[in-house]
Amino acid sequence: MAMKLLVANPNSTASMTESISRAARRVSRPDTQIVAVGSLSGPPSIQGFFDGAACLSGLLAQVERHNDVDGVVIACFDDTGLDAVRCMLEVPVVGIGESACHAASMLSNKFTVVTTLSRSVPVLEANLIKYGLASRCARIRATDIPVLKLEHKFPETTEIIRREIELSIREDQSDAIVLGCAGMTSLAEQLTNEFGLPVVDGLSCAVTFAEALVAANLRTSKIGGYGFPVAH
Amino acid sequence: MAMKLLVANPNSTASMTESISRAARRVSRPDTQIVAVGSLSGPPSIQGFFDGAACLSGLLAQVERHNDVDGVVIACFDDTGLDAVRCMLEVPVVGIGESACHAASMLSNKFTVVTTLSRSVPVLEANLIKYGLASRCARIRATDIPVLKLEHKFPETTEIIRREIELSIREDQSDAIVLGCAGMTSLAEQLTNEFGLPVVDGLSCAVTFAEALVAANLRTSKIGGYGFPVAH
Amino acid sequence: MAMKLLVANPNSTASMTESISRAARRVSRPDTQIVAVGSLSGPPSIQGFFDGAACLSGLLAQVERHNDVDGVVIACFDDTGLDAVRCMLEVPVVGIGESACHAASMLSNKFTVVTTLSRSVPVLEANLIKYGLASRCARIRATDIPVLKLEHKFPETTEIIRREIELSIREDQSDAIVLGCAGMTSLAEQLTNEFGLPVVDGLSCAVTFAEALVAANLRTSKIGGYGFPVAH
Amino acid sequence: MAMKLLVANPNSTASMTESISRAARRVSRPDTQIVAVGSLSGPPSIQGFFDGAACLSGLLAQVERHNDVDGVVIACFDDTGLDAVRCMLEVPVVGIGESACHAASMLSNKFTVVTTLSRSVPVLEANLIKYGLASRCARIRATDIPVLKLEHKFPETTEIIRREIELSIREDQSDAIVLGCAGMTSLAEQLTNEFGLPVVDGLSCAVTFAEALVAANLRTSKIGGYGFPVAH
Amino acid sequence: MAMKLLVANPNSTASMTESISRAARRVSRPDTQIVAVGSLSGPPSIQGFFDGAACLSGLLAQVERHNDVDGVVIACFDDTGLDAVRCMLEVPVVGIGESACHAASMLSNKFTVVTTLSRSVPVLEANLIKYGLASRCARIRATDIPVLKLEHKFPETTEIIRREIELSIREDQSDAIVLGCAGMTSLAEQLTNEFGLPVVDGLSCAVTFAEALVAANLRTSKIGGYGFPVAH
Amino acid sequence: MAMKLLVANPNSTASMTESISRAARRVSRPDTQIVAVGSLSGPPSIQGFFDGAACLSGLLAQVERHNDVDGVVIACFDDTGLDAVRCMLEVPVVGIGESACHAASMLSNKFTVVTTLSRSVPVLEANLIKYGLASRCARIRATDIPVLKLEHKFPETTEIIRREIELSIREDQSDAIVLGCAGMTSLAEQLTNEFGLPVVDGLSCAVTFAEALVAANLRTSKIGGYGFPVAH
Repeated sequence: MAMKLLVANPNSTASMTESISRAARRVSRPDTQIVAVGSLSGPPSIQGFFDGAACLSGLLAQVERHNDVDGVVIACFDDTGLDAVRCMLEVPVVGIGESACHAASMLSNKFTVVTTLSRSVPVLEANLIKYGLASRCARIRATDIPVLKLEHKFPETTEIIRREIELSIREDQSDAIVLGCAGMTSLAEQLTNEFGLPVVDGLSCAVTFAEALVAANLRTSKIGGYGFPVAH
Repeated sequence: MAMKLLVANPNSTASMTESISRAARRVSRPDTQIVAVGSLSGPPSIQGFFDGAACLSGLLAQVERHNDVDGVVIACFDDTGLDAVRCMLEVPVVGIGESACHAASMLSNKFTVVTTLSRSVPVLEANLIKYGLASRCARIRATDIPVLKLEHKFPETTEIIRREIELSIREDQSDAIVLGCAGMTSLAEQLTNEFGLPVVDGLSCAVTFAEALVAANLRTSKIGGYGFPVAH
Repeated sequence: MAMKLLVANPNSTASMTESISRAARRVSRPDTQIVAVGSLSGPPSIQGFFDGAACLSGLLAQVERHNDVDGVVIACFDDTGLDAVRCMLEVPVVGIGESACHAASMLSNKFTVVTTLSRSVPVLEANLIKYGLASRCARIRATDIPVLKLEHKFPETTEIIRREIELSIREDQSDAIVLGCAGMTSLAEQLTNEFGLPVVDGLSCAVTFAEALVAANLRTSKIGGYGFPVAH
Repeated sequence: MAMKLLVANPNSTASMTESISRAARRVSRPDTQIVAVGSLSGPPSIQGFFDGAACLSGLLAQVERHNDVDGVVIACFDDTGLDAVRCMLEVPVVGIGESACHAASMLSNKFTVVTTLSRSVPVLEANLIKYGLASRCARIRATDIPVLKLEHKFPETTEIIRREIELSIREDQSDAIVLGCAGMTSLAEQLTNEFGLPVVDGLSCAVTFAEALVAANLRTSKIGGYGFPVAH
Repeated sequence: MAMKLLVANPNSTASMTESISRAARRVSRPDTQIVAVGSLSGPPSIQGFFDGAACLSGLLAQVERHNDVDGVVIACFDDTGLDAVRCMLEVPVVGIGESACHAASMLSNKFTVVTTLSRSVPVLEANLIKYGLASRCARIRATDIPVLKLEHKFPETTEIIRREIELSIREDQSDAIVLGCAGMTSLAEQLTNEFGLPVVDGLSCAVTFAEALVAANLRTSKIGGYGFPVAH
Repeated sequence: MAMKLLVANPNSTASMTESISRAARRVSRPDTQIVAVGSLSGPPSIQGFFDGAACLSGLLAQVERHNDVDGVVIACFDDTGLDAVRCMLEVPVVGIGESACHAASMLSNKFTVVTTLSRSVPVLEANLIKYGLASRCARIRATDIPVLKLEHKFPETTEIIRREIELSIREDQSDAIVLGCAGMTSLAEQLTNEFGLPVVDGLSCAVTFAEALVAANLRTSKIGGYGFPVAH
């Protein structure tokens, strides 16, 4: 079932869009076409509520331009603009944050989210409560690594993430880890092997879940809050 | 205690900004200065998730321009951009939606929100869950009156709201009503008298609560999710 | 990515296993091999708590026999034995009930489950609370159609389901329907078209989600409650 | 808008009533008249469930005597007798506990309550759950300082509160502190400055919120649980 | 195991105390001594928040006088003063409201409470949330029969209760009924037989649960919120 | 009121059935007859989800054989098969896990469960959420003592439990302990005396609660999810 997926990175850092694109291709079906775009304007990374608002007009413009797709992935763990994008399209639209948490819920009893800055924690908490999955999440742990620093793959950043995973297992009694930033995607496999528990990368889940929803012939509801915007 | 409040209307309809300004002045302290502004761009009314995202850049620009104030009121019942605006300032920032619901919680046991279009219901539900007040709200009732139609004060729109208030009392066992749109402000007093229960207008609550927080010498927290945006 | 999925029907009715197998093949990837089995013993359909317990030994025996797979789907909307099966294997194990509800959560704001007998409602409610998704479900509606009667596709059974969908939209304000029985799979497409909202079939979601989890390289956690059974 | 507020201290310690009166005057509007009274009988401080019951008859008698006011503040952080007093009057009645928590919810993402004895913690937990605000409160921390010892402003009591604030920031990830006793009022400003986050005093919030509700023309609902007591 | 139970009626109506006493004796063990007392002062029935506060001093005085017992039952469905009485004693103290709801939770999937006046509904809702059992209660239905009218056993009052039970089964999908007033005790058996589902009387549950806790050698915790009142 | 109780041990270890029988007799009424049985097949102890499923057919067969009783106690803290057994009978059926938690809720403000292996924690968490009592439980603490090791009463196992009780008081602020395994029954009295707080043994509570429900003339609801299994 050939399909075309838009992977929309809400930030404007081209190198991150590029990594996201590569990672999406790695897990997608052979006949899925990945169209990766970054926000046309706005902040170079999404760190908290303000950035999440500041990137929206550039993000929505990109979705408008690429609306001939079979599904959309919002490639920021904050699921920035997810509800607004769902209003624009009939095809399935998934966020990498929600996808990771839905996936972890089907693989474990309780998960910990390991994210970047502590200022993002309330954003993620609000999302988890809205999705209904807050009761499945033992804790959201901030590493205080800025998003763009993750790109450089400094050994010390991985070390900090490792320490939080150890604490998640010992203190939170979690049996899965959700990596709370698109910039952590490349670490998932290695950390899974090291710790012997699911270390869930949202991008991989979002791409394969979008494919799953398309394959199951499902579409975004247009009769309620996700209906097309009405004329004023 | 003289103070200056910014009342920011997230939509771009000048007549609504004007009504909001008048209503704010009616309840504010004699020595409070009200600065009412509309969004610089974006939709003429905020009806659902998409409009809430589309108005943000124009709204944030207005706040940026008027940041020499003692407090801010976001004058849309969806509390559009509330978290982002809190990141921009140290002074108190309140939404009319949250204010009405906090007020109703101190005046009644359970309230019903009577709002405009049903497409806004999920927006309000997500807010109530985030604020923690969902358990105080018996139900959110849509009248399916478009926001801008409220301006005209057609008798039939008031009649529809009346009918929903009756249902709120009889079916939801609510003992207060929250009017779920800035455009309904002028109806609060009349409906309170007619039905003999608190009919809460968010704008009045938001203006007087912003004054209350300023008078109590309180400011928005800058150490967590509402910290000033960080450089990237 | 060729894979083999076990689709385990907890009831012992061969014709239902056969329909389930066909439906699974319809949505699965071209190179996915579907192995469909029914419970070796136990009741011909799962209608409530007792049947859910009575089928378990026959179900677990079948999983034990077919444990050389890449993923497992439990093909009863009650997600019968889901936790126990997860303890037996490292590969992903998903239930059709949970899958449908996770999917509906990514396509709509609020869904109604339309199921068979009212005696199953508390089983589903307990599951939704455990999954964390109860807040996304407006209501579980029983049609009081016995499971095995669904097989015959009597026009009147479809009519009853139709009526419940109408009530879900009007009274529950739901913008998606989840079909709460594996026997309703064949109705999803038709009802989606008729009502213009997502009518979610759990089997399709479970098969494509199991494929998605395998493609994303994810496995069931073995360090917590889903660890392999310990020797006594 | 000239108004008269009854500030009712549920305990019978005159010096506390006096401090409460002074603190109320400090934040109230210039034309607000503060009438501060203590309970006519009952315990010298409210420490837990028993004291909360034992002071009620003396407290309700005082409210009965001073019912010619525009609003009432219950000046104990346990919000002692709040529901009963609401039944007696049509004017707004607010507790200092609820007011502080509503205020903190509009200034921060998550707050910690720092209170006196650990025996009061379940009282406050029950209140927060009833108000709906439990999800906004990260933790209630007891200092084990008796209420009346706070009056003396011993340096060591401030030191203990300081230590709990540090723990609230570091361990609870809270971005606001709520001071959980009327006797801590005088510390709010100093601790706010020291720690650079909102340290919320309930008395200030309650006085200014009562004024806000009066200014917004709102009254306690009389049609539900807060209706005037019925004849038997 | 001979024991003495105090059954404390928070209202001051002697005939109700007498009925309560008789009903308690009917279900208690042969060697249990029932000491039934009414409040020394306060309202003739407890109808809402105000009465619940007004009866407390008379109720606590009675408990003080009869503290040489092995267990206490608070015989008002509002569980009036329950927390305060627990602070006074080491023996088990149970309310008839909580007992009925705990019992119904062990006999059914979901129960409806059928109570007297609608002004009592918020009292009961707050209790259920505090006990943690709100999720087990489908709805609280008011019959608007005043408490004291129940005494007369007018056929029309039973008819009203019957109608609410029918609605509980049909609309709330409840499979048990909790009678929400001590004055309804005598109806439980008859209505159970008529409707073929558990119609739970709190007084019977409270007496036998108090006996059960005593027989299991359990006592009220004295190390937390139920510790003996501290000197001031 | 002479009655016969079936105490069904879901595991197949005869010595545990024997201890359970003795403990049940110790707290039961003089004229109650205790019939204690173990599962006919299945694992020697119930440690987690898989064992809980594997023991069911042997457990249900035993209940079928002994259905001429006045009440049933499921004697495993996981309340294994509780819902299924309720479908088989009209008499009250209680689990030792639920009974302990209902009892602790009437004796304390917040309890900690101290159980055996950490793999059982998610089983107990799911139960607590289903019962509605999760909000009353501060934490579930695993000692990592295997069930069968408890039989030997090694001093070091008691020491480990003691340490967890200390942590429950200090860190969880719990004022009651629930012993999370039938094998810990014999420790309850000693630990209660040592720590001066209720240390609740589920078996004692379940036996006396089953007696209480029988004495109060209550039966399992047969009109909803606990109705007798229907023919297929």
